[in-house]
Amino acid sequence: MSEPKRSDIKRVVLAYSGGLDTSVILKWLQVTYGCEVVTFTADLGQGEELAPARAKAELMGVKAEHIYIDDLREEFVRDFVFPMMRANARYEGDYLLGTSIARPLISKRLIEIARETGADAVAHGATGKGNDQVRFELSAYALEPGIKVIAPWREWDLTSRTALIAWAEAHQIPVPKDKRGESPFSTDANLLHTSSEGKVLEDPWQETPDYVYSRTVNPEDAPDTPEYITIDFAKGDGVALNGEVMSPATLLAALNELGRKHGIGRLDLVENRFVGMKSRGMYETPGGEIYARAHRGIESITLDRGAAHLKDELMPKYAELIYNGFWFSPEREMLQAAIDHSQARVNGTVRLKLYKGNASVVGRRSPDSLYSERHVTFEDDAGAYDQKDAAGFIKLNALRLRLLAQRGH
Amino acid sequence: MSEPKRSDIKRVVLAYSGGLDTSVILKWLQVTYGCEVVTFTADLGQGEELAPARAKAELMGVKAEHIYIDDLREEFVRDFVFPMMRANARYEGDYLLGTSIARPLISKRLIEIARETGADAVAHGATGKGNDQVRFELSAYALEPGIKVIAPWREWDLTSRTALIAWAEAHQIPVPKDKRGESPFSTDANLLHTSSEGKVLEDPWQETPDYVYSRTVNPEDAPDTPEYITIDFAKGDGVALNGEVMSPATLLAALNELGRKHGIGRLDLVENRFVGMKSRGMYETPGGEIYARAHRGIESITLDRGAAHLKDELMPKYAELIYNGFWFSPEREMLQAAIDHSQARVNGTVRLKLYKGNASVVGRRSPDSLYSERHVTFEDDAGAYDQKDAAGFIKLNALRLRLLAQRGH
Amino acid sequence: MSEPKRSDIKRVVLAYSGGLDTSVILKWLQVTYGCEVVTFTADLGQGEELAPARAKAELMGVKAEHIYIDDLREEFVRDFVFPMMRANARYEGDYLLGTSIARPLISKRLIEIARETGADAVAHGATGKGNDQVRFELSAYALEPGIKVIAPWREWDLTSRTALIAWAEAHQIPVPKDKRGESPFSTDANLLHTSSEGKVLEDPWQETPDYVYSRTVNPEDAPDTPEYITIDFAKGDGVALNGEVMSPATLLAALNELGRKHGIGRLDLVENRFVGMKSRGMYETPGGEIYARAHRGIESITLDRGAAHLKDELMPKYAELIYNGFWFSPEREMLQAAIDHSQARVNGTVRLKLYKGNASVVGRRSPDSLYSERHVTFEDDAGAYDQKDAAGFIKLNALRLRLLAQRGH
Amino acid sequence: MSEPKRSDIKRVVLAYSGGLDTSVILKWLQVTYGCEVVTFTADLGQGEELAPARAKAELMGVKAEHIYIDDLREEFVRDFVFPMMRANARYEGDYLLGTSIARPLISKRLIEIARETGADAVAHGATGKGNDQVRFELSAYALEPGIKVIAPWREWDLTSRTALIAWAEAHQIPVPKDKRGESPFSTDANLLHTSSEGKVLEDPWQETPDYVYSRTVNPEDAPDTPEYITIDFAKGDGVALNGEVMSPATLLAALNELGRKHGIGRLDLVENRFVGMKSRGMYETPGGEIYARAHRGIESITLDRGAAHLKDELMPKYAELIYNGFWFSPEREMLQAAIDHSQARVNGTVRLKLYKGNASVVGRRSPDSLYSERHVTFEDDAGAYDQKDAAGFIKLNALRLRLLAQRGH
Repeated sequence: MSEPKRSDIKRVVLAYSGGLDTSVILKWLQVTYGCEVVTFTADLGQGEELAPARAKAELMGVKAEHIYIDDLREEFVRDFVFPMMRANARYEGDYLLGTSIARPLISKRLIEIARETGADAVAHGATGKGNDQVRFELSAYALEPGIKVIAPWREWDLTSRTALIAWAEAHQIPVPKDKRGESPFSTDANLLHTSSEGKVLEDPWQETPDYVYSRTVNPEDAPDTPEYITIDFAKGDGVALNGEVMSPATLLAALNELGRKHGIGRLDLVENRFVGMKSRGMYETPGGEIYARAHRGIESITLDRGAAHLKDELMPKYAELIYNGFWFSPEREMLQAAIDHSQARVNGTVRLKLYKGNASVVGRRSPDSLYSERHVTFEDDAGAYDQKDAAGFIKLNALRLRLLAQRGH
Repeated sequence: MSEPKRSDIKRVVLAYSGGLDTSVILKWLQVTYGCEVVTFTADLGQGEELAPARAKAELMGVKAEHIYIDDLREEFVRDFVFPMMRANARYEGDYLLGTSIARPLISKRLIEIARETGADAVAHGATGKGNDQVRFELSAYALEPGIKVIAPWREWDLTSRTALIAWAEAHQIPVPKDKRGESPFSTDANLLHTSSEGKVLEDPWQETPDYVYSRTVNPEDAPDTPEYITIDFAKGDGVALNGEVMSPATLLAALNELGRKHGIGRLDLVENRFVGMKSRGMYETPGGEIYARAHRGIESITLDRGAAHLKDELMPKYAELIYNGFWFSPEREMLQAAIDHSQARVNGTVRLKLYKGNASVVGRRSPDSLYSERHVTFEDDAGAYDQKDAAGFIKLNALRLRLLAQRGH
Repeated sequence: MSEPKRSDIKRVVLAYSGGLDTSVILKWLQVTYGCEVVTFTADLGQGEELAPARAKAELMGVKAEHIYIDDLREEFVRDFVFPMMRANARYEGDYLLGTSIARPLISKRLIEIARETGADAVAHGATGKGNDQVRFELSAYALEPGIKVIAPWREWDLTSRTALIAWAEAHQIPVPKDKRGESPFSTDANLLHTSSEGKVLEDPWQETPDYVYSRTVNPEDAPDTPEYITIDFAKGDGVALNGEVMSPATLLAALNELGRKHGIGRLDLVENRFVGMKSRGMYETPGGEIYARAHRGIESITLDRGAAHLKDELMPKYAELIYNGFWFSPEREMLQAAIDHSQARVNGTVRLKLYKGNASVVGRRSPDSLYSERHVTFEDDAGAYDQKDAAGFIKLNALRLRLLAQRGH
Repeated sequence: MSEPKRSDIKRVVLAYSGGLDTSVILKWLQVTYGCEVVTFTADLGQGEELAPARAKAELMGVKAEHIYIDDLREEFVRDFVFPMMRANARYEGDYLLGTSIARPLISKRLIEIARETGADAVAHGATGKGNDQVRFELSAYALEPGIKVIAPWREWDLTSRTALIAWAEAHQIPVPKDKRGESPFSTDANLLHTSSEGKVLEDPWQETPDYVYSRTVNPEDAPDTPEYITIDFAKGDGVALNGEVMSPATLLAALNELGRKHGIGRLDLVENRFVGMKSRGMYETPGGEIYARAHRGIESITLDRGAAHLKDELMPKYAELIYNGFWFSPEREMLQAAIDHSQARVNGTVRLKLYKGNASVVGRRSPDSLYSERHVTFEDDAGAYDQKDAAGFIKLNALRLRLLAQRGH
């Protein structure tokens, strides 16, 4: 499992966005490794035109049958985002894992394409300081243990923007005007979120400038009137918005629009990377934030306490596994099995109020509700609950504490 | 440890609010148990006049030296709320435990007074369906294992409001006019929060009516302009607001004012009670919500990842222990020891933006910051971090996954 | 859910062993409740004749069609013991849960019979101080929420042995001579174990007298020559002994014989009961101890580290749930789903050495082994592992610790 | 934090055993790095003469004042072994962490000596495939973040035994005759244990040959008569054997003798290394095994259930941290704070029976015992416990399960 010798690589599948950086990588792979490049461009709902990626790849000599452009939006939400949401996963208390959850899907497709095209390696454009390299590579190795992985940012010496652009120009890669200067921050986007980090965000004491946000209006500019919506759930997954049945990706897209409008889902966070350093990120997860709150809302009436508390205890580890890149690991799958088991009766409707950055659950109902007005009522409960039982309950719960307090007396 | 015989009780310390219900209990204890009653009324910042409690107790024949009215606000925040906040405790993901955390302090004082006055029992006004009876009694037993506990709501037959009022009038207890009808919901308040439950809140599909809220303005009525504040922390506890040093209770009170003004800290929740049923509650924790977010903010730059993740994993259990009434238990103390150990360097300043229900951390700085711009920068890092190290890091993290994938090949 | 009124009970299913105590209960139910009694006697491998139970029940007037005697041994091992063993469950570090795991099965059958016979209640002979009452009743309520449960030991006033025997004689229940005196301890037995507690065992400083043991020879009397055996596993469950395929109960019975002969599986323990007190018990789990060690042995080469460590972290909670009686709970089922997911490739053979109380794994092999001699060898590994990768692995694992140590410098 | 340039190193502290391998390293450092070498040889109770190490170091030109030979036995047991034993730590269910727990102490002393001698680097003889390199280096970096670490086995090309010996001879390093051939396995020893791995142990199906064991007699050769001992504990640590007060290291050494005699503490294990592969090891931990069982024994009567179960839940993570090398990490220290908090009343005496591989707790007593015969007795308990309390206890524990079962009816 040592580093691949460059001459060993005959064909490599590159995760290709069509942007400047991965275009440089494409060319650099051709030049440095002397190998054939297969490009893979995924539509994960990042909201960019993918057609140009094909043209650029062709221009750099990639064979037509080696240019893959796939719409993965439904698979992304159905098989990755929704399962994760069943766990109420938030990394370090807040982060909804928008970037983390997209990486294993990209790797899965990279490996599938490598098999289809007989490639012996995959390549990605993530740097050596971040989490994404880990996520891409752990997923790739877990799915195809013999695959070779090329991470140009860890290999080449293009360590400054100037060097990169000079190399691009020297190799006839068109450099758009707006890429010539330093971009003030770096972003990643998909149907679940947009993240921004670096440059102007590097001082954690400085407030994130408003121009960094791209997916949500400023809450101050959001409508002055609240909007009420309902989300229906079936077996723990969202299935309808305001009563209208939708596919997973359609539902999330619709929630994104609502979140954008009401300024919901902004998060300014200093987080701990798997590679050992802290970084400051700004996340916008408009639809995801609404969805996450709604999911907790429907669970609150349909999950038993034992199931709910076990889920809460398992969640931090589950979220950490996804953050660290261990989606395709036995322990993530074991936790998923436990979580999924709990969702069989998580059915019903949640009502939310959206208003200037807030997404508040204001109502929930379910044919599978465990909430019993009969038991909880302050009124006469017709014998549903015998208050005298509480005396024995408390006495036996207290017994060990009393024995402790009596010790040595 | 069987139920106390009524004739065994000579003197009982009652947690006495001065309101109708605990006044009825006071008289009922005198009549039923034929015992002397000592009253204890705590100022926990609930915002009510306590002087009338003295007059009422005297009127019902309680000796002057047996009327205790104590201001516990500083002890409450310093020794209970702040330690709990160090853990970032939220029950079932959201609830800041405002009621739960006050109960052990009341029991602690009840037991102290029982010792001072030679009482053999304590009594409280919590019903047999709720969590508070458990919290009061577990704490009392843990501190004084031989104490007797009287919970009139589990004993008497005054099971309707009408019966209670009739009994009051038959025993010359003044019934205020506004207590004659059914109150539309029930509340509990202290410096950390106000909770409301029951009656109009019993249908979890119905939105909480606006008149239920008493501690916060509706976000829609909050100022249209955000307000920025700073909170300073020392060893994990808040010590200053906008640079002004304050005692714990003063700080929380000031944050409550800010939270009230900006409509922060409302929570509508269906939760799982320890006694086995679900209930729907409405909580207002204006200052607590701001404080909790600020605490996570300062931890984000001063806690190491290992410490932070361990805290996140322990938190659900810690919160459950407090919710269930096990503040005075070895396991809560063990978790507290771990948590407190982590807070030694949690020093610095957090900047927050308050706006219409939102309390967002927008900046954090600390002399003990672990955030290293040198490491995280996209620019040249002058050798702080060698990107090539990441290759080995990933390879060894991937090894077990590769072995798994190779199995059987 | 208040205590059933006695006149409400028309027919009750009693967990009936045929012994003196449950015979008294049978009669007491007829006399006190004036109800019809259905008896259920389970063969769980306790090694007693069950035929007499039928005769005794008939003698006390139970209708022939209301006498149930069922051989549950295979169901017990297949659906309860083996799933639990997949988790490597040991309560408080040692106890293999032999009593705890039998209770839910008995309750399951009690409820099935109650449905078949139209009974409105079930009854058991467990006392009010132990765990078994909790286990019986939680299982019964979980399966049939409206069932009534009668626990005579908590109701009647037969609180001494003398009183019980006097009552028996007054009601024409034959009292065997050896039951007239106090038995020196109390036992419970099934195919997995025999437990003994009480009386001569109540002082935890006194060594358990040898006459208490019934399932194992004293290690000092065991053969002087070790015996080697193999156990084969498929999907985490034992399927063969020394190459001979066996059903679950047959396998466990055969291991019991081996364990008995070699003095394996004795455990002298002070444990914490769910009802709040400590008790001292003596357990003999001869086959179970061998099986448990073998299971860990086969997992050691077939489970990935991530799966193995997650299992170890979940185990204490899983064991506690079974001990406390929550077999039929959502959280136990969730944990089981996770555990079972991990067992898909737990196949292979374990070799053990049995010798005077020791059951030691001395070899393990599997077609699904993850052990790689190629990787681990001190010899040349032909490039399987690049030692230089370790440098980067360590560097990034150390990064956060270095940043911590640099803080404030 | 890139690899140190060789010319940067002026002086290095080497963990030096005096054996062939570290002697080669000593010379190799002098030759390759051209730097001064400081040697550090620790007496951790490995049972070898340390005097020859001084002579060899001098022979290779190390200055007398740069030769450190320290007796660390008491510090090792008092500050590392005993704190770990308080946690009942066993990695992967069995391994008592004998090697893992010694490494941080060696690193601590390496760093202290580096500071005293003004060295800029430390070096160790662990290979690139094992856990020890990680443990040494994480500890070193945590204590001195700017230190450089040299791990010759990851750098040099002496990848076969032949090459190593040839290099030694070419550099005038004496090669003992018995080191010329391949040793049949590799060992590590200290006061807590001896581990053996590699070569003849590499096939996990083959039983460990008897000649591998060096610290214990074969149980078959152990005395035919059991031996009874007592160990006294104070605050969770062993303080006396058979009533005789002993220092930590003296106590462990005495237990080692007992364990050796009775064949106690052998363990044949396939374990998961932190670097990602499985390895098969054979451990002998004679005194440690006895001590560990005794510690659980004294806890069984002095720890409350809440504390005991929390410890059991935290243990796997705690053990993993030590195994992986994170002794000097905030999270290990947090867990230690929790564990130590629980030990304040872990006082008393445990009686054990040692016999042919078995170390069985047969009695325990304590002035701080929480075991209450009054509560547990089958006899009349004089009102200590009201069995009727159990009914309410069960009812409320069952409530959520009944609501679950009623759902949808």
